[in-house]
Amino acid sequence: MPAPLGRVVEMLSTLPGVGPKTAMRLGLNLLSRPASETVALADALKLLHEQVGFCDICGCFAEKGLCQQCDDPAREGDTVCIVEQPVDVLMMERGHNYRGHYHVLHGRLSPVDGVGPEELNLAALDRRVEAGIKELILATSATVDGEATAHYIARRYRDAGVRISRIARGVPEGGELEYLDEHTLSRALDQRISWDNGSI
Amino acid sequence: MPAPLGRVVEMLSTLPGVGPKTAMRLGLNLLSRPASETVALADALKLLHEQVGFCDICGCFAEKGLCQQCDDPAREGDTVCIVEQPVDVLMMERGHNYRGHYHVLHGRLSPVDGVGPEELNLAALDRRVEAGIKELILATSATVDGEATAHYIARRYRDAGVRISRIARGVPEGGELEYLDEHTLSRALDQRISWDNGSI
Ligand SMILES: [Zn+2]
Ligand SMILES: [Zn+2]
Repeated sequence: MPAPLGRVVEMLSTLPGVGPKTAMRLGLNLLSRPASETVALADALKLLHEQVGFCDICGCFAEKGLCQQCDDPAREGDTVCIVEQPVDVLMMERGHNYRGHYHVLHGRLSPVDGVGPEELNLAALDRRVEAGIKELILATSATVDGEATAHYIARRYRDAGVRISRIARGVPEGGELEYLDEHTLSRALDQRISWDNGSI
Repeated sequence: MPAPLGRVVEMLSTLPGVGPKTAMRLGLNLLSRPASETVALADALKLLHEQVGFCDICGCFAEKGLCQQCDDPAREGDTVCIVEQPVDVLMMERGHNYRGHYHVLHGRLSPVDGVGPEELNLAALDRRVEAGIKELILATSATVDGEATAHYIARRYRDAGVRISRIARGVPEGGELEYLDEHTLSRALDQRISWDNGSI
């Protein structure tokens, strides 16, 4: 196999769900199709990180300073849905029934991996809560660490005069939001329950 | 979804076996991993067509003027295996039991698609046969058009004083070489039968 093809195949095989055989098929396809198409994909990949950054306010994906949600005056800015990753915002938006804002933690508490509150995007959330928010919706994952993170945040803003809720357990045990269908996620959001410290 | 991500997802979904959902997963992965990794993949893709061309002699993939096989004096240059696509050479080489050369047609006869003998890499094969070849192994696909192409080439070199053989039907009906396991392909090559015009 020519070395440049080998390098592409090796890199493709690091993608999720792409084994060595699939990577080989994809690499050969990229070599066999017109050069202009493969170069176009390369160009698009180069622009990906260059043009897509994080929203100054909420931390989700944004092309400029603010994301679509934070930049939309029609959305309810006093309701903030807290998620672990930028991709979770895209998943939530597929449901089309949430009209509030988001806050992306960029992780979740994980004692094993040494991720404490300081490693999460919480200082910015403190400022948002101080500036005035009616409701915080905890949409961290239903994993052990995601639950612990939800509990931690509920405790952190217990006395901040903000309503705290948790999306309902339509989310299967151990499930990452990223892999959920939009209906389950929509339902979980609609059936969210008020966070009453201690009872959940 | 940010537009640059949308463009990547759209292009990825044109790859074989990659539907819109998988393309989305791959695109998000490429956006979530360190920028340097995504840029490295983009760079490798850019070099793919730039650095990998076709062999001057046989038409298979080559990084410089000649491919590995044509450039290897230890291989038997008087045996030439005829395949449809450059990728078929890679598939043949996985078997490790063939020590001759190749000739890539870059297609197969297809009346429906308007592909005639002039569209195939046959003028170069004429010159190789004239220069002296002992055996031509027809390794075109077991599709209807692949069979027709094998028949056409057998007839074309009927009086050229060259032995003509066809790889055995270990190749399943309608099968493309690209999707075969190496054992089936090795066996088909070992069991190739002499081309006796009219009998096959
Ligand atoms: Zn935002
Ligand atoms: Zn060659």
